[in-house]
Amino acid sequence: MKIRLTKEFEFEMSHALDEYQGLCRNLHGHSYKLFVTVIGDYIKNPQENSSGMMLDFKCLKKLVEENIILDFDHAVVLHKNSVFANVLKQTDTKMIMFDCQPTCENLIMEFHDRIVKALPEGVKLAKLKLYETKTSFAEWLIEDNE
Amino acid sequence: MKIRLTKEFEFEMSHALDEYQGLCRNLHGHSYKLFVTVIGDYIKNPQENSSGMMLDFKCLKKLVEENIILDFDHAVVLHKNSVFANVLKQTDTKMIMFDCQPTCENLIMEFHDRIVKALPEGVKLAKLKLYETKTSFAEWLIEDNE
Amino acid sequence: MKIRLTKEFEFEMSHALDEYQGLCRNLHGHSYKLFVTVIGDYIKNPQENSSGMMLDFKCLKKLVEENIILDFDHAVVLHKNSVFANVLKQTDTKMIMFDCQPTCENLIMEFHDRIVKALPEGVKLAKLKLYETKTSFAEWLIEDNE
Repeated sequence: MKIRLTKEFEFEMSHALDEYQGLCRNLHGHSYKLFVTVIGDYIKNPQENSSGMMLDFKCLKKLVEENIILDFDHAVVLHKNSVFANVLKQTDTKMIMFDCQPTCENLIMEFHDRIVKALPEGVKLAKLKLYETKTSFAEWLIEDNE
Repeated sequence: MKIRLTKEFEFEMSHALDEYQGLCRNLHGHSYKLFVTVIGDYIKNPQENSSGMMLDFKCLKKLVEENIILDFDHAVVLHKNSVFANVLKQTDTKMIMFDCQPTCENLIMEFHDRIVKALPEGVKLAKLKLYETKTSFAEWLIEDNE
Repeated sequence: MKIRLTKEFEFEMSHALDEYQGLCRNLHGHSYKLFVTVIGDYIKNPQENSSGMMLDFKCLKKLVEENIILDFDHAVVLHKNSVFANVLKQTDTKMIMFDCQPTCENLIMEFHDRIVKALPEGVKLAKLKLYETKTSFAEWLIEDNE
């Protein structure tokens, strides 16, 4: 039987969409919410010493914290050619440079690549859901991309 | 790569289910929550002037507000033969007449038809999720209906 | 057209994972949240006396309350060989014995079996989502298991 497990994360991040015609071209921040869902085979095992887990939620949490949250929480994420990049480099603020606009779509793709590399054998990434605001989110689904 | 984008909406609506054996045959209201999810192709583009968006959340918001929220927010929705229809017509309250019972299922189908017509080329409706109460919702999924 | 309907439930439950290397081997509790989603065919029917429902939310609620919530709410769920089982049997607390560890994965499988047996004809279980904590949940999906 296939089971999916999800852990939810929050992080605070700034970005600017330099080419955007509207408020988003300004440097601004969001309280992002990220849902990471993995899928794997699970067989009920009546053995006393069986963990009864497809994957320990703790492992999933650690993996995402180390590969995403640690880097992106309280960071400024910018296109490498952003007008804000040069001026902020003069400060000691935490920065991440993208070779694309730091939109919800591109963050999802970056997170996808990082998590896929870090997952243990037998466990696959099934879904990424990233809330940029309380009422807006982007998703990557394994079933859309097979 | 396929990406999904979702916007969440709230609206206040009254209805009555005339034939229902229970409380719902009374004229009553709900705080509805609607999640509209679209799907489209997305390619990461390192060009500085690329928007980095599959679709601007703002466009999705505007489209749903104009085609659904504007009409249904603070409206009374009734079967055209409802006993409440005739008496309420004597007032100046905002009313929408259905040729079916205004259940969660039928609202979803009405919203489906309205949104599908309004979406830009290259973007498809992937999912509609409509909360009638805090613990009850109906869904239409593209993968169930292809 | 296929429509999905979901009802959300909460219940308070204690468990212990005897073989777990960490805090979860202790007897402890969670505020579980369970989302039960069913799928069925729905045809819009303009007849006045049509219910306009694929399944009454009330029926789904009753079915899950009777088959799951009634048993699991305020219960202690343990592996039948748990060290806590023998001592707690000396009290009159509500207990459920599993032949496997009472993890999120095994609870989902138990709930799956109970609901599938109880559903009316024409309605299938589509999804089970069980939150163990505010940021951790397990899921069983029909599309993963067909």
